[in-house]
Amino acid sequence: MEGTIEEKAYAAKRASVHLANVSTDVKNKALKMMADALLNNKDAIMDANRKDLEEAEKMKQDGQLSSSLYDRLKLSDAKFNDMVSGVSDVAKLEDPVGKTLATVVLDEGLTLYQVSCPIGVIGVIFEARPDVVPQVMSLCLKSGNATIFKGGSEAKNSNRVLFDTLISAISQIPEIPTAAFHLAESREDVAKMLELDNSIDLLIPRGSNDFVKYIQDNTRIPVLGHSSGICHAYVDESADIELAKKVCLDSKIQYPAACNAIETLLVNEKIAGEFLPQMAKLYADNGVELRLDDKSETVLKKSGADLSGANLQKATEKDWDSEYNDLILSIKVVGSVDEAIDHINKHGSHHTDVILSQNKQNINQFTGLVDSGNVMVNASSRFSDGFRYGKGAEVGISTNKIHSRGPVGMEGLMIYKYILSGSGQVVANYTGIGAKKYMHKRTDEKYCRLQ
Amino acid sequence: MEGTIEEKAYAAKRASVHLANVSTDVKNKALKMMADALLNNKDAIMDANRKDLEEAEKMKQDGQLSSSLYDRLKLSDAKFNDMVSGVSDVAKLEDPVGKTLATVVLDEGLTLYQVSCPIGVIGVIFEARPDVVPQVMSLCLKSGNATIFKGGSEAKNSNRVLFDTLISAISQIPEIPTAAFHLAESREDVAKMLELDNSIDLLIPRGSNDFVKYIQDNTRIPVLGHSSGICHAYVDESADIELAKKVCLDSKIQYPAACNAIETLLVNEKIAGEFLPQMAKLYADNGVELRLDDKSETVLKKSGADLSGANLQKATEKDWDSEYNDLILSIKVVGSVDEAIDHINKHGSHHTDVILSQNKQNINQFTGLVDSGNVMVNASSRFSDGFRYGKGAEVGISTNKIHSRGPVGMEGLMIYKYILSGSGQVVANYTGIGAKKYMHKRTDEKYCRLQ
Repeated sequence: MEGTIEEKAYAAKRASVHLANVSTDVKNKALKMMADALLNNKDAIMDANRKDLEEAEKMKQDGQLSSSLYDRLKLSDAKFNDMVSGVSDVAKLEDPVGKTLATVVLDEGLTLYQVSCPIGVIGVIFEARPDVVPQVMSLCLKSGNATIFKGGSEAKNSNRVLFDTLISAISQIPEIPTAAFHLAESREDVAKMLELDNSIDLLIPRGSNDFVKYIQDNTRIPVLGHSSGICHAYVDESADIELAKKVCLDSKIQYPAACNAIETLLVNEKIAGEFLPQMAKLYADNGVELRLDDKSETVLKKSGADLSGANLQKATEKDWDSEYNDLILSIKVVGSVDEAIDHINKHGSHHTDVILSQNKQNINQFTGLVDSGNVMVNASSRFSDGFRYGKGAEVGISTNKIHSRGPVGMEGLMIYKYILSGSGQVVANYTGIGAKKYMHKRTDEKYCRLQ
Repeated sequence: MEGTIEEKAYAAKRASVHLANVSTDVKNKALKMMADALLNNKDAIMDANRKDLEEAEKMKQDGQLSSSLYDRLKLSDAKFNDMVSGVSDVAKLEDPVGKTLATVVLDEGLTLYQVSCPIGVIGVIFEARPDVVPQVMSLCLKSGNATIFKGGSEAKNSNRVLFDTLISAISQIPEIPTAAFHLAESREDVAKMLELDNSIDLLIPRGSNDFVKYIQDNTRIPVLGHSSGICHAYVDESADIELAKKVCLDSKIQYPAACNAIETLLVNEKIAGEFLPQMAKLYADNGVELRLDDKSETVLKKSGADLSGANLQKATEKDWDSEYNDLILSIKVVGSVDEAIDHINKHGSHHTDVILSQNKQNINQFTGLVDSGNVMVNASSRFSDGFRYGKGAEVGISTNKIHSRGPVGMEGLMIYKYILSGSGQVVANYTGIGAKKYMHKRTDEKYCRLQ
C-alpha cells in the first residue's frame, strides 16, 4: 500500500479489528502459505540480500557500519532455513485469541466473560536483521495483531522483498485483511511512528541499547523491550564451589554479547578466600578480563594463586553500572546476601540475576527481594530466554514493570475484553431500597461465539 | 517522613521490595489496625475535614471550586463508615502476591516458576476525595505495593490526618516498612512525580477528564486510567423493543455523570420507525435532551408521535465525539451493524458499548469487532464497574490496550517474576553438538518459598 505512515497506521488500525476475528484454521493456512512463498522466492530474497550486503560492505570499509551489524544483515542458507521453519512453527503454537480467562455469573442470566484478544496494532522498529520481518509477521498474524514494520535502510532491499513475498502469500486468502500489515521505509517514518499513539498500541524495538533507549525516550506509546542487561551472579557463603564455578563461567562466557550474560560477580566474604582464586583462574584461562574491587584484589593476592597471564584490573565505581557485552567481568566482595541484594537492586537493570547457594533462607531472601524479571537459583543467567523457557517464540525481553516481564512470547501481544451477556438487566434494579443482590459466582463456562 | 519528593520516591522504591515479601497474616493484621485507627481518630479526621470544607466554602462562593468537587471533599458519617469498612473488606480479599502462575520443567532438576509479585511503587494523584487515601493505601498494602500519594490542596488537612493515622497504625507492626508510604503535599510535587520514572512504576490519577489527560500527556510513567467515556448503545433490527427501551434508558439516566453512561444511541434503520418514537418519548419523560441526526429527525417527524415537551435538537459532527456527562443524548440512524461498529470504533473512547439484539450473528459481529474494554449484550452500560463485576475493589477503569483493561481490581497492581530453580545447569550443555534437549513439561507444582 502506498501512502503516508499516518495513512498506513490508520488503515492498520481499521483492519486490526477484522484480523482479530480470523479463525485459527485460516491463520494457520496463511502461515503455511507464507512459509511456502518464502521457499519459492528464495532466489529473489537472496539476490536482494546480496544487494544490501554490497552496500553494507562499502559502508563497513568506510567505518560507517559495524561488523556485527553486517553479520546480522547477512541471510545465510542456514538463517534462511531457520526463518522458514520459524514461520511454520508458529502454526503449531496454540491460538491465543478468544480464550475465556474468567467467567463470573453476576446474576441469573447475566454472565461476565473475560476473553483474550489481540492488543491491536504493533509497531516494530528494527535494525539490520531482515529475518525479523517473517518472524514478527507470523507471530502478529497468529495473535491477530496488525503490524507496522520499519526496518533499517541497510536492509532496505531484503526487507522489501520479504515483506512483498509474505503479503502476496496472504493476499490469496480473502478472510485475511492485508491492510493490517505495512512496511515503512523512509527514515522520517520512525519519528512519525513514535507520535502515532492513536493508531499504534505497542512498540517493539529491536536493536542496540542506544537504539532502544532512543525509542523509549521519545514516545508515549508503550514500549516492550529492554535497553540494557546488567546481570549479576552472587556466590553465597553456603555455595557449592564446584557448582558455582560451572554456573559463573557459563553465565559469563557462553555468549558474552548477550543481554543475559553477567557483568558483575558478587562473592560473600566468608567464601571468597576459597572460591575466588579458583574462579579467577578459570576466568583467566578463558580469556576473561577481571575488574576487581579492593577486597577481591586483597583476597587474590593473599591466596598466592598462580594468576600469571590473567588480565587483572582495578574496578572503579563506573564498573558497577557497566554492560561490557564482552569478556570482561567486575568482581566485588560483599558481607552478606542483603548487601548483594542492595547492590543488585541499585546497579542492576532488573533483567536477570543469579544466586549460588545451598542455604534455603538466603535463597528465599534473594528470590524475594531481588527486583528483577528473572531470578536464577543455582543455574546459569543464560537460561533467561523465550525459547529456553519453552515459549515457542520470543517477541522480546522486557524489563518493564507492567504488562509483561522477562522473556515475552506471544502472550505479550494479548490483552482481553469483558463481554457481559444479559437479557435486559438494568443497574437501577441493583441499586437503592429493595436492590437485587449480585451473585458473583465464578464458573468454568467458556465464552462461545457461535451459540 | 520529611524530604523532597525525589527522596520520598527513592525511599519508597527501596522499601517496596521488603513490602513485597510481607506475609498475608501480617498484612491483614495491619489492615485491621488501620480500620481501628480510623475509628479511634474519627473526631480528629472530621475536624480536619471541616477545616478543609470551610476553606472550600469560600472558594465555592468565589467560583473557584465547583459544587461537585465540594461534595466529593465532604466526609459525611456515611462516607466515613464506608471508608472504614472498605479498609476492613480488603483484608478479606485473597492475597494476590506469590501465586504460581505457571510452572515449566525445563529439564530434570531445572524448574521455571512464574510467580506473581507487586509492580513496585504506585503514584496516586487525586483531587478532592480524601477517602482515596485509606482506600488506595489498603489495596496497595495488601498487594505489596509502595505508594506515593499526592492529593489536591483543597483536601490538605483531611489527607494529612488520614495519612498520619494510617501510618501510625502500621508503624506498630515492625514487619511493615512504613517508608513504603508517603504523602506529597506541595503543588510542585505533581510535576516532579511525573518525571520520576526511575522510582515510580505506575501512576493512577483520580479526577476530572482534563486532569487525567494532563497526567497522561506529561509523563513517561505508565498511567492506569481513562480520560473520557464516550459509550454507545446500538439497537439492532432484531432487538426486543421492550428490553431495548429498558436498557437504553438505564444506560443513560441511571447516573448520567458516570463515565459508563451512554452518550450516543445508534439505531438500525429497519427498526427505527417502530423503536425511536417510543424511546424518544421515554427519554423526554425523563428529562433527556435529544440531539438528532437528519434520519432520526425524519423518523420521529414521520411517526407523528406526541413529543410535546421533549427537548429535541439537531446533532452536529461534534456531538459524535462529545461526552456530555449529563441528561443529553445524541441519536443516529445506521444502515447495519457494521456501520454501527465503524461509528463506535471511530468516535468512541473504547470504554463500554452495548448491543441490543436477538440475532446471534450480529451479536458475534459486534462483540468481536467493537474495540472496547467492555461490550454489553442486552444489558446496561452501567454494569461496567469493578464492584458490579465482583472484583471486591476497584483500582480504576482503564482504556489502555496493555496490562489491564476495563474495570481494574487489585490484579492490575500485580506483575510477575520468573524464578528458575536449578542444580548447577549451564546453557553450554544445551547448545551445539550433543546438546541436551529441553523437556518443557508444564506441571501444577506451586512455587514454595520455604521448602
